[in-house]
Amino acid sequence: MAVGQCDFPEMHEVAGISLGTACAGIKQTVKDDLLVIAMAEHASCAAVFTQNAFCAAPVHVAKANLAQAPRWLLVNSGNANAGTGGQGMQDALFTCASLADVVGGAPVQVLPFSTGVIGQPLPVDKIKAALPAAVDNLSQANWANAARAIMTTDTFPKGASAVITLDGQTITLTGISKGAGMIQPNMATMLGFIATDAKIDQTLLQNCLALAVEQSFNRITVDGDTSTNDACVLMASGASLAPEILAGTAHYRLFADAVMRVCKRLAELIIRDGEGATKLIRIVVSGALDDDEAVLVAKTIAHSPLVKTAFFASDPNWGRILAAVGRAGVENMVLEDVQIYLAEVCIVRNGGRAEDYTEEAGQRVMDQEEITVTVKLGRGNAVQEVLTCDFSYDYVKINAEYRT
Amino acid sequence: MAVGQCDFPEMHEVAGISLGTACAGIKQTVKDDLLVIAMAEHASCAAVFTQNAFCAAPVHVAKANLAQAPRWLLVNSGNANAGTGGQGMQDALFTCASLADVVGGAPVQVLPFSTGVIGQPLPVDKIKAALPAAVDNLSQANWANAARAIMTTDTFPKGASAVITLDGQTITLTGISKGAGMIQPNMATMLGFIATDAKIDQTLLQNCLALAVEQSFNRITVDGDTSTNDACVLMASGASLAPEILAGTAHYRLFADAVMRVCKRLAELIIRDGEGATKLIRIVVSGALDDDEAVLVAKTIAHSPLVKTAFFASDPNWGRILAAVGRAGVENMVLEDVQIYLAEVCIVRNGGRAEDYTEEAGQRVMDQEEITVTVKLGRGNAVQEVLTCDFSYDYVKINAEYRT
Repeated sequence: MAVGQCDFPEMHEVAGISLGTACAGIKQTVKDDLLVIAMAEHASCAAVFTQNAFCAAPVHVAKANLAQAPRWLLVNSGNANAGTGGQGMQDALFTCASLADVVGGAPVQVLPFSTGVIGQPLPVDKIKAALPAAVDNLSQANWANAARAIMTTDTFPKGASAVITLDGQTITLTGISKGAGMIQPNMATMLGFIATDAKIDQTLLQNCLALAVEQSFNRITVDGDTSTNDACVLMASGASLAPEILAGTAHYRLFADAVMRVCKRLAELIIRDGEGATKLIRIVVSGALDDDEAVLVAKTIAHSPLVKTAFFASDPNWGRILAAVGRAGVENMVLEDVQIYLAEVCIVRNGGRAEDYTEEAGQRVMDQEEITVTVKLGRGNAVQEVLTCDFSYDYVKINAEYRT
Repeated sequence: MAVGQCDFPEMHEVAGISLGTACAGIKQTVKDDLLVIAMAEHASCAAVFTQNAFCAAPVHVAKANLAQAPRWLLVNSGNANAGTGGQGMQDALFTCASLADVVGGAPVQVLPFSTGVIGQPLPVDKIKAALPAAVDNLSQANWANAARAIMTTDTFPKGASAVITLDGQTITLTGISKGAGMIQPNMATMLGFIATDAKIDQTLLQNCLALAVEQSFNRITVDGDTSTNDACVLMASGASLAPEILAGTAHYRLFADAVMRVCKRLAELIIRDGEGATKLIRIVVSGALDDDEAVLVAKTIAHSPLVKTAFFASDPNWGRILAAVGRAGVENMVLEDVQIYLAEVCIVRNGGRAEDYTEEAGQRVMDQEEITVTVKLGRGNAVQEVLTCDFSYDYVKINAEYRT
């Protein structure tokens, strides 16, 4: 169930980046499940990958090929090709070679991505058979089809698009993501593909993406499960007439801001589509000694089933938030210095319930669909924000009944 | 709902330890909610407390008084006296002074414990008024009443009792615990009180308890929330005719084993009463480099809502267990070396699904009420075990509806 405004936006085309989809029938035959993205020659390509120690076969291949000036992305939904042993690696390489055959490139120029069920062999023959159709319909206008092709348990396609102007010339940024929470039932979860026509070298593009992901996709959680297949790619075709973006310039800052905005929107859409979610919860921790401390406290709150079930029930149960802050593992934290707010309503101050707090004021905030919790630690100046959703009957239902 | 065999056992009386209960009407007036435990003069008393940074007022007082040769424990259910600021500390001290008045002792000889709702003022007048009745019925035979008096959302009273023989003389160990999971809805959770008639000095008793708690109460989890009030106490009256227990002796090892057994049973009963639990899950991680690594992997599995909802659904969804092992944060883990078993059934081997695994074999294990998951890391010789329960609709219901 989508929380809030999640309509698919106008997607500005990105010169030098084209997309083609097809239905390979990997897990179902209702919608396209195969996506090919082709980049212009000399495009730069940056990517970040899951930190799960057991990353899937396609992640290993994509990591290795990233240094080989990739020209094509090959994405399938319906099967994660994870937990598939040596066969999985062969299968990932086979699909890259199959696409290279069709487009006339080298297999190492293909980055493979898979998302879906873990532990089942990838049906490589179905994928190979569908590749010509996907390549045939490569088009710069295909973003909406691409967003649908990578969906698994997502309830809506996810896109974001932005245009900035540098020296009178436009630069376009357009991206898609998939994922219905960091957790997926037996699925390997989150993918993001973002394209721009900016001219920018690979190293700077990689730095820019790493920073943006850290503040967007790495700041969302349904319950902290990191999948075996998470990946986010940023492609830069160089087709824009705007000057090349160089490190340390005002142009870079404008560009990096736009990348950040697109990433944050794509990440937020994943939480708005969180499994069973009925509420979007923004947890802001300020007054921390450093960013790591702020994130640690925010994620401890965001992962607490106690806190999440209270939000589902619209119950202003501040004791649960306070207990989560206390067990976050921050050394020498002083209870008397901590303040907790629900939206603008102060609920905890001076080591206990704020003297002016009323259940009615708390209830008014909790009844809303989007809620900001602010925790002021009173220790320093670092501020960080984490997005999460509540924990509902439907969460249990979706995850308990997934394979039945 | 109790999972498996949870009947209240025969509780051997402990010479030199007497218990008295009363109904103070703190949150309800249906059952006793006040417990006084009196120790013989010269008894030793050991205790371990919550590691939550925001521990409750009574925890602060009990920690301080532990060094003052305590003679009495004062326990209330229905109110945690946590998140209550400076007033909470005054209230804890007031109840200690009130009990000292009744029994003719010093306030510093009382250790206070509270469990129940967070953030509400402790009704000290009700407690003071009920203390004479609790002291009046102090008796060595009162263990069952004591176990009921400390219950909050527990669905059954929890006890364990053991007798060992040293040099032809018996030593008795009898204890009670409360808690319906490490998580409690707005509650401050787990308490354990264990008594023995052994002669043993305080330092050795403290070491013995710390070791036992580490392997019992610290190895259970519903979802990793550590409450603000957790505490476990081990009292030794010295009334047994057995010789004093000294460090490094065979007698000490026998005694420590018995303490461990009682603690493990009391801890296991908490999981069997876990909120909404329908299954008991024993997670054994072997082949770890050290104990910390084994516990880290076991707890990552135990905390995963994906794994817990799969157990609720009796779904042998091994991909979720594998993904949890992979994200546990163990460096340089090799997927190909990891084996995962459901009971005796090998499900993961050589980096993927075991070639001889069948869904039917996995399903037979999952259909049982008590399930052992074994993860062999293939890195070293350390083995650790963690107990947890599944994650059901009732878990969400209990925690979402607690205050309605």
